[in-house]
Amino acid sequence: MRRPGVSRRIFTTGAAAAALAPAGLAATAVGVTAGRASGEPRPAEVKTITLYAEEVADGQAGYGLEPGQATIPGPLLEMYEGDTYEIELVNTMDVDVSLHVHGVDYTIDNDGTAHTNSTVPPGESRVYTWTTHAPGVREDGTFIPGSAGYWHYHDHIVGTEHGTGGLQRGLYGPLVVRREGDVLPDRTFTVVFNDMTTNNLQTGPDFEAVLGERVEFVSITHGEFYHTFHLHGHRWADNRTGLLESESDPSRIIDTKICGPAESFGFQVIAGEHVGPGHWMYHCHVQSHSDMGMAGMLIVSDAEGNAPGDPGHHAEPSGNQPEAQGGSSHH
Amino acid sequence: MRRPGVSRRIFTTGAAAAALAPAGLAATAVGVTAGRASGEPRPAEVKTITLYAEEVADGQAGYGLEPGQATIPGPLLEMYEGDTYEIELVNTMDVDVSLHVHGVDYTIDNDGTAHTNSTVPPGESRVYTWTTHAPGVREDGTFIPGSAGYWHYHDHIVGTEHGTGGLQRGLYGPLVVRREGDVLPDRTFTVVFNDMTTNNLQTGPDFEAVLGERVEFVSITHGEFYHTFHLHGHRWADNRTGLLESESDPSRIIDTKICGPAESFGFQVIAGEHVGPGHWMYHCHVQSHSDMGMAGMLIVSDAEGNAPGDPGHHAEPSGNQPEAQGGSSHH
Amino acid sequence: MRRPGVSRRIFTTGAAAAALAPAGLAATAVGVTAGRASGEPRPAEVKTITLYAEEVADGQAGYGLEPGQATIPGPLLEMYEGDTYEIELVNTMDVDVSLHVHGVDYTIDNDGTAHTNSTVPPGESRVYTWTTHAPGVREDGTFIPGSAGYWHYHDHIVGTEHGTGGLQRGLYGPLVVRREGDVLPDRTFTVVFNDMTTNNLQTGPDFEAVLGERVEFVSITHGEFYHTFHLHGHRWADNRTGLLESESDPSRIIDTKICGPAESFGFQVIAGEHVGPGHWMYHCHVQSHSDMGMAGMLIVSDAEGNAPGDPGHHAEPSGNQPEAQGGSSHH
Repeated sequence: MRRPGVSRRIFTTGAAAAALAPAGLAATAVGVTAGRASGEPRPAEVKTITLYAEEVADGQAGYGLEPGQATIPGPLLEMYEGDTYEIELVNTMDVDVSLHVHGVDYTIDNDGTAHTNSTVPPGESRVYTWTTHAPGVREDGTFIPGSAGYWHYHDHIVGTEHGTGGLQRGLYGPLVVRREGDVLPDRTFTVVFNDMTTNNLQTGPDFEAVLGERVEFVSITHGEFYHTFHLHGHRWADNRTGLLESESDPSRIIDTKICGPAESFGFQVIAGEHVGPGHWMYHCHVQSHSDMGMAGMLIVSDAEGNAPGDPGHHAEPSGNQPEAQGGSSHH
Repeated sequence: MRRPGVSRRIFTTGAAAAALAPAGLAATAVGVTAGRASGEPRPAEVKTITLYAEEVADGQAGYGLEPGQATIPGPLLEMYEGDTYEIELVNTMDVDVSLHVHGVDYTIDNDGTAHTNSTVPPGESRVYTWTTHAPGVREDGTFIPGSAGYWHYHDHIVGTEHGTGGLQRGLYGPLVVRREGDVLPDRTFTVVFNDMTTNNLQTGPDFEAVLGERVEFVSITHGEFYHTFHLHGHRWADNRTGLLESESDPSRIIDTKICGPAESFGFQVIAGEHVGPGHWMYHCHVQSHSDMGMAGMLIVSDAEGNAPGDPGHHAEPSGNQPEAQGGSSHH
Repeated sequence: MRRPGVSRRIFTTGAAAAALAPAGLAATAVGVTAGRASGEPRPAEVKTITLYAEEVADGQAGYGLEPGQATIPGPLLEMYEGDTYEIELVNTMDVDVSLHVHGVDYTIDNDGTAHTNSTVPPGESRVYTWTTHAPGVREDGTFIPGSAGYWHYHDHIVGTEHGTGGLQRGLYGPLVVRREGDVLPDRTFTVVFNDMTTNNLQTGPDFEAVLGERVEFVSITHGEFYHTFHLHGHRWADNRTGLLESESDPSRIIDTKICGPAESFGFQVIAGEHVGPGHWMYHCHVQSHSDMGMAGMLIVSDAEGNAPGDPGHHAEPSGNQPEAQGGSSHH
């Protein structure tokens, strides 16, 4: 078993600072942003943050970085391979809650499950420690995959032993682990198809970008159903990063991808590349799902702020468009 | 934004000529065939075609290259990266119809959606322009994926804002974008799992090939359900082309693939390679789906015309086998 | 058509010998183990085995290598590319049974289907011949994929023409085809999500391994539903082997994968790598599926036999934990 050597330089103020990042017009969410790689190797970091599990309106629940600030999905957490997160989960709800994560390393007492006694009773808190590692080679010559990927975290105890109630109510969020040298996006948008909702909304939120910006999507599925995430006018590679890794990368280029519960993937596109500005729809392509509202817009504006495709013609009478969630900006 | 430089050499007669391509015994469909690559670089082409959206029997509908010739699926359209299609869609139906495409480039006014006002009222027509591009490299060193792929087109307005009724009725078809140098098939067969039908048929059509021919399948899913496409006796690589791209291509070799609505993929096999002639079944491997008829045959005959595996023993009492659709031949 | 040149050295006693391999605490199943590669090229082998299709308890059925020894899933069959299996299927049941296989080569009279007259009436037997081949290059320069992969076999006639009844009752099993030089696991565990069961059990079986052992999972889906296989604390590459093939392998690293009926995949992990010992849950991540019992444990013990995570807290009152199946050990 290997643990990455981590420097113990702790960025206790990192979370609060990153939470101030400016947001797009309709896409707003606080996030914990990873530091940027510079010319010299990036030292591994240990970050300490607090997550609050809270009830929000209408019986829903979310994770937030500050009391009273819970969102659905929860904050975008970012790490670089080698980093460690020490996350204190504060349970302000009236039922046991937990924090279970996909993709990164943790000892079994950080599993967030009932059988490991790693859940949090009401009014209490618990520190979960996540570690990550860079790719490597084992003594037998096989490759150790690095932790980089588009992952996610969620409750694993509310309602059932598998957190079915917690997921339904909104206790989930995105985690992006980056590899040193990975291209960083200008904006990151998170789309969670959770049962018949998008980010627990009846209508998918709209996301805004400027023509030519590098836009990153994190797509996560939860609940009971499979979905097919589709984005109009843009495509990506069906591999680790969503970007072709070389000229000979054989990955399929796609604009639609089936996902089942707890699957996640991500990709980056250049907003409007080859196609120009516009109201580019994204939606689940299961016909009844899109018909029932699992659709929203990637609104790509040109330098003058124009984005053709009259939104007044879009979908439901949109006077009561719910506040969009799931986006964060790196600007 | 980049647009490929295109020569304005227009092949106005291309569609009609290609429609005369000979077909297999049971697999017949007109198609627009891309020109073949020669020793010198292939010049980009601009093709102008007309597509007719028409009602066919039993309340179904299809796209066709000539009036009264609509098929389900619609004609196989082929492009090379760099080519442009200018497609006049003529709506002979009594409801608004549109043409929405996956995979290729188009400005937002070619989206075929309600919110972009790019649908076609009854009795009217509209030109949709699709462009494509070869792979490239951006200024920041990241790769631009080319347009090559196994894509598809469909209505996006009949019945609902997402074209649910148009898809149910049959308004869909295959689009193959090839890369210069791609290996060309001898025959191309299209299998669309659309709700509980195959190409809107209650029983999957049969396809015919001769032992050793290079057979290409285009698999598309539409509607509500996921399906698992399975072909007996033949396998392919789960990547862009379905062919291993190099000796080190790590892609999984598969003979069964899950797909959800609007996903598409394609592959080539050598008919009967390693296994010989025979009635090789293809089917959806969701058990109730195959039991209810989502199955057909790839009939591979040897040089003497023999294809073992008595079709009289196959499936339903087959006196009323519906006319097969979805195939085209490059011979 | 190509058939691999095979030496006719026959290991008639191979099956019985391999069946004696020691098993983990809760994971036991007989298997046919491929010979290990040595320094010199491994000669292709022809193996002759007998499979018995038998009824087991509660109306279920399974394949076994000896009379009265049927298991669900059936025995793990292993081949190296180039090997041939001559399998006599003895039908001890009172309905027609067959043996249909995915991934390997066979002539149409070995298809195990009704239309090819290759099923077995009650009380009779039939020899099915499977061949395999190494990767190669065709005369036109395209690559022939080798037979290596995580495949499976199943009945194709009980209940319906597609074997729906046979699959429901348990007539399925894993087949692993290895490439010379492939890394061999210490243990192989098979997990079949078959309708709402795991290996036809209402609760997923537990599997045991020691910290640092190379553990191989073979995941197969059958029946009606899609599932998402998830393993806590461990990840793999979504490619042919589940192991990254090179430093530049662009495959997505995952810990959750959607699969539909008849899909299969496999991967190897180092038990507890980066995370230590513990009761690491695996489960279908479709929420209702895990809630209804599609979950079990990968129990990773350290050198002292400790595996934290109290199993008494796990899931159902476990006094009547059904006997686990699906595992085999290479020790």
